[in-house]
Amino acid sequence: MQKLTSEIKSAEILCVGTELLLGDIINTNAAWLSQRLAELGISVFHQSVVGDNPERLKSELTEAFKRADLVVLTGGLGPTADDLTKETVASLFGAPLVLDEEALDFIKSYFKRRGIEMTQNNEKQALVPRDCIVFHNDCGTAPGMAIEGGEGEALEGRAAILLPGPPREMTAMFIKSALPYLKSRTSSALVSKNVHLIGIGESTAESILRPIIDECENPTVAPYAKAGEVRMRVTAKGKTTEEASAMCDEVIERIKATEVGKYVYGIDAHSIENAVLQKLIKEGKTISCAESCTGGFIAKRLTDLSGASAVFLGSAVTYANEAKIKMLGVKAETLERVGAVSEEVAIEMAEGIRRTLGADIGISTTGIAGPTGGTDEKPVGTVYIAIATDKGTRAKRLNLSPQRDRDYIRTVSATNALALVLEE
Amino acid sequence: MQKLTSEIKSAEILCVGTELLLGDIINTNAAWLSQRLAELGISVFHQSVVGDNPERLKSELTEAFKRADLVVLTGGLGPTADDLTKETVASLFGAPLVLDEEALDFIKSYFKRRGIEMTQNNEKQALVPRDCIVFHNDCGTAPGMAIEGGEGEALEGRAAILLPGPPREMTAMFIKSALPYLKSRTSSALVSKNVHLIGIGESTAESILRPIIDECENPTVAPYAKAGEVRMRVTAKGKTTEEASAMCDEVIERIKATEVGKYVYGIDAHSIENAVLQKLIKEGKTISCAESCTGGFIAKRLTDLSGASAVFLGSAVTYANEAKIKMLGVKAETLERVGAVSEEVAIEMAEGIRRTLGADIGISTTGIAGPTGGTDEKPVGTVYIAIATDKGTRAKRLNLSPQRDRDYIRTVSATNALALVLEE
Repeated sequence: MQKLTSEIKSAEILCVGTELLLGDIINTNAAWLSQRLAELGISVFHQSVVGDNPERLKSELTEAFKRADLVVLTGGLGPTADDLTKETVASLFGAPLVLDEEALDFIKSYFKRRGIEMTQNNEKQALVPRDCIVFHNDCGTAPGMAIEGGEGEALEGRAAILLPGPPREMTAMFIKSALPYLKSRTSSALVSKNVHLIGIGESTAESILRPIIDECENPTVAPYAKAGEVRMRVTAKGKTTEEASAMCDEVIERIKATEVGKYVYGIDAHSIENAVLQKLIKEGKTISCAESCTGGFIAKRLTDLSGASAVFLGSAVTYANEAKIKMLGVKAETLERVGAVSEEVAIEMAEGIRRTLGADIGISTTGIAGPTGGTDEKPVGTVYIAIATDKGTRAKRLNLSPQRDRDYIRTVSATNALALVLEE
Repeated sequence: MQKLTSEIKSAEILCVGTELLLGDIINTNAAWLSQRLAELGISVFHQSVVGDNPERLKSELTEAFKRADLVVLTGGLGPTADDLTKETVASLFGAPLVLDEEALDFIKSYFKRRGIEMTQNNEKQALVPRDCIVFHNDCGTAPGMAIEGGEGEALEGRAAILLPGPPREMTAMFIKSALPYLKSRTSSALVSKNVHLIGIGESTAESILRPIIDECENPTVAPYAKAGEVRMRVTAKGKTTEEASAMCDEVIERIKATEVGKYVYGIDAHSIENAVLQKLIKEGKTISCAESCTGGFIAKRLTDLSGASAVFLGSAVTYANEAKIKMLGVKAETLERVGAVSEEVAIEMAEGIRRTLGADIGISTTGIAGPTGGTDEKPVGTVYIAIATDKGTRAKRLNLSPQRDRDYIRTVSATNALALVLEE
């Protein structure tokens, strides 16, 4: 068999699964793999989805190999008769399927660990194309594999990587096995770093940074906006990861030195809740929330992160006015006088939860998430957020577009309330 | 120009956007469109993604029209020089671009409504291929369109539908304009209904329903499982929507008559939180939550739904022990004696929030979501849930797999706590 001699520069992603074509599941694998390949400096010009159908799969693969050095396939590796990805790729590469004893042991031990009897059809999963590189599966039964250079000119210097369909198995196998394999097949490294901004709009940030964006070719700088947050992605291509990383850092320092600098809340911060959590852990401070319109979403986002219990004490989700009074000590008189969606109530809520739980910080939200409930004075999208600390309490009014949906308004409200913590 | 005379039976989805190829955004459009096309009885055998590159787009389109009657494209309709989908399709169909006055008025009024000045490049969006059907955009500026039968045999009887890339604009335009267009081009109707189950595993449900699954060809019956819930999808093809719907109902009645029947919590219930909300609204009852391991996720899910304020009073997210004591009146002695993750604490939490907020129902969760914090006696995945009503309080222990991730354990815990409400 022909083996790879040149490096992998381009790839396509081919996801196999009838459930994708029916729209039963959203294809998160393609985006995840595209990001990983971009980080390796491998260009992706095409993604596609076909069903568990050998003819269509073969035809798509043949087309893909005309355009790209590598095809990464996901799905169709399971034990049932429907699963034909491995068989189709092996046939295209002209490699007979052989039993891999190590893969079989791996599958057997998987069932043993779970105390489940292994059925005959699971043995099929230990069959692999001859001379391929086997990737063991730590989270499931189907092994993955890399196959290089098939018979004939069309596949010369080409490679296919086969990964399982379930995202949990796929991502674990990619990181453990496919990534080291691909690193040995590429000579340059691409590194991306994200500069996270809060409190500034995308267009304002972009216009301030325009000279840097226009001037930079490597690294490149590109703005992205999502639900109230903006990030600038800095991407550098270097000979090594270290070199590319240092190139990014240089541009990030230039960004920080501009007007935009004061809105930077983190570099590769993952999320604002993570930035808040890390900051509180570092400073040894505790936080509590009082949520009306966000309905528990701030607490949910903070507790998505393992380790939240070190700083997050609790949240009062006070949807009804009575709940605001009973759980937070908000005054009935205030609710009566200025209404639940008001600066005064936001302040009483933040102070109330801080006092009740004895936390260093209390944050609150109260607003109209819509689609109903808006008035002329307080349209849908009117949200008050507040923060109470030992230095006092301050509130902020957000005027989000009434044309945005409920989910957007709740997300942006939660994000801005979390941003108050970073501002302090 | 050749026009469509035959009906549309097969389609492909072609999403255009470099941000998809970079993995910056997840392609939710493909799944959403696939579902809608399946409902129309149009088979989708292929989905693909290409960048904003006219050559690759043209080549992919040409291949797609060899396989399918219809190609639905999303993205690349905007005002910038990158956006070339419309130009590429028009050139393939041999239709020159002409100014559509109505589309221009629509775009102008969009900017006027927002008080923003319209820049010259936005006019480009009002150019459409001659003789196409224009779809106005209620949520943005770029119109969509349907083009039928281009010059030459390759495009005879073929159609392309162009929709904007942003999901909010795409879905609104599809429902308003593309759907009626497609209905006029199809002669059969496909209807799917989902039977939602809770409290029974996928394999148990499947084995009970095996005779029905095997016997049914139209409608078909297929099981799906996701984070603690199981649904059976019943899909019928009929001459009209009404006929297909009635065919589904017949099979659903057969499913309900089996052992599985008692686990059915709704038909097309959208979600368990929606089923809970509708039931409480109907019965005029109020609910409150006390959440530890789910960290506000139950409250978040209930308040995702507009109208939650009618029945949802509030939730105490009590992560710290002190918060359980102060906000819910859980006894320090109980926490000391049996620990926070225990049946007794779950019961005190549910009763505490019900009493504090004066709600008809109180539900609670306390458990170990992981990845750390597990012990031999209470491994990661140990969760207690409880429900308090005027009839008393009962609790349940869930033993979820410690190998599952935090997100799964929290989701399944929240789902099971909500299921307790439906059980009462």
